[in-house]
Amino acid sequence: MVEHVNLREVGLRDGIQMAKRFVDTEHKLEWALRLKKAGVREIELTSFVPPKIVPQFADADALATHLPQLSGTVPSALVPNLKGAERALAAGFRHINYVLSISEAHSQANVRRSTDEAIAEFERIVALKQTDAGRGMVLGVGLATSFGCTLQGKVSPDRVFEVARKVADGGADELIVADTVGYGNPAQVTMLLPTIIEIAAGRRVLCHFHDTRGLGLANVAAALETGVRAFDTSLAGLGGCPFAPGATGNINTEDTAFMLESMGFSTGVDIGALLELRLDVETWLGSEERYSGAIARAGLPKTFQLQGETAI
Amino acid sequence: MVEHVNLREVGLRDGIQMAKRFVDTEHKLEWALRLKKAGVREIELTSFVPPKIVPQFADADALATHLPQLSGTVPSALVPNLKGAERALAAGFRHINYVLSISEAHSQANVRRSTDEAIAEFERIVALKQTDAGRGMVLGVGLATSFGCTLQGKVSPDRVFEVARKVADGGADELIVADTVGYGNPAQVTMLLPTIIEIAAGRRVLCHFHDTRGLGLANVAAALETGVRAFDTSLAGLGGCPFAPGATGNINTEDTAFMLESMGFSTGVDIGALLELRLDVETWLGSEERYSGAIARAGLPKTFQLQGETAI
Repeated sequence: MVEHVNLREVGLRDGIQMAKRFVDTEHKLEWALRLKKAGVREIELTSFVPPKIVPQFADADALATHLPQLSGTVPSALVPNLKGAERALAAGFRHINYVLSISEAHSQANVRRSTDEAIAEFERIVALKQTDAGRGMVLGVGLATSFGCTLQGKVSPDRVFEVARKVADGGADELIVADTVGYGNPAQVTMLLPTIIEIAAGRRVLCHFHDTRGLGLANVAAALETGVRAFDTSLAGLGGCPFAPGATGNINTEDTAFMLESMGFSTGVDIGALLELRLDVETWLGSEERYSGAIARAGLPKTFQLQGETAI
Repeated sequence: MVEHVNLREVGLRDGIQMAKRFVDTEHKLEWALRLKKAGVREIELTSFVPPKIVPQFADADALATHLPQLSGTVPSALVPNLKGAERALAAGFRHINYVLSISEAHSQANVRRSTDEAIAEFERIVALKQTDAGRGMVLGVGLATSFGCTLQGKVSPDRVFEVARKVADGGADELIVADTVGYGNPAQVTMLLPTIIEIAAGRRVLCHFHDTRGLGLANVAAALETGVRAFDTSLAGLGGCPFAPGATGNINTEDTAFMLESMGFSTGVDIGALLELRLDVETWLGSEERYSGAIARAGLPKTFQLQGETAI
């Protein structure tokens, strides 16, 4: 019996939020549709941050008009606050990811709020769930900088657990444990995740790793050991961090799928189709971005076989 | 009590064997001396393959005249056969690494011998240990293509165990389990290593991983779980495989040290000094080579601290 691992593609959100070029809405849609065709079943499609802050997402509403074409997948949107959640719901999203930072310094830099203020905003989003407008909302909550912070340095595991508990008990449907800046290591994963899974009490726990310091896939392997079966990944490893010039971004979708399939997990993802898609993504984003990925460079092993079904 | 993990630097051997440029003997020596100064305690310094096959090692004897300067470290040499072992001993090496391939196809391609013929050659090297010339020899045996082969594809774990047993029982002092082509994954590591450690019966087991498909450090983390405490690594991730153009080479020394230290293991390695050394290595080898490494690109985390003592 092959176990399934979900890859949630975040390239269209985390991957391009700092990109130099605006990606046309039609290309974003093609990107998403080809992810669907390649078997990707969860796609973070856009973000409802104010376009003044991230111009890349100025077309969030326009993109959302195409949501029906993505049926069969779970498209989600990131929101930085209640207003974003309202906009996302109005645009037709059902799955909403709200991110708060464990690090006070990062929270202030990112959303000009303390972590406790961000938790209060989370509670307002949960209240929205209980209104007519919020009916059916599935709320994921990202715990950014859970493994450390470029601004404040260390982040206390106790604080991670405390915030995770508030969020799980407070009405989140899933928890996304994020190594926002690529500080995490496998020992930390092994230490943090079991307690967070316990706190989550049956809610899904995803891991969101960045490969900034090369440990992304080692962290995935460690998280698998703790029972995590869902990961945020980004095509071509897109997703540079503004605080780490030249750093790589999210863990690479193709490489993660390769590792998981090699280890005997099924992802349902057609790696070959992703490698074709990334060629087009590179033309849309241009040479200003950094594209990573070992499989794109070295190819799949001769012995490689997908564990499960690929895209329908 | 901090546990120590040994990194054996193979950049001067595996790392440069396919390099376009010949590295001058004086630069090789500087490279080795600066590794020593940076706290690296095991260095595979050269190879006694015929210079006609690998011209880079034409200066193996000349380099060996400087062995006394490397006292305090364990310098070793790779040998492809008995003749190489004799040359290495005559040159002053005590630690000798003989490599044989589990894959028949790779064995034929690499040394024009079947695996069984390579085992017979191993037995001749063991016989040499019993002579006056071989007295004190420490013999490491590399099990190449233990995780798969670009030529023949799959490699049977039973064959890996069978060869490991012949080698361990036959007089090897340590076993080096090698993923020569970067086909291995953490599940395979978890499956293979415990049995090999059992077969080794107290002899040291090292892992030799290539990061060709991005799983190098994930494999290290998995091997740590099985009890392995020694790894072959290469400065700047040097070591391209001739059968995989554009592929990366060995796992990167700086990144491996970073991961291990972050996880609470001590390596004794001064990562900053390695980052300085790699700048010079890049000038010696030129822009024809591929230099990898996340730490060289993104820097160490603000929170990073070495676990143990760095270089003396």
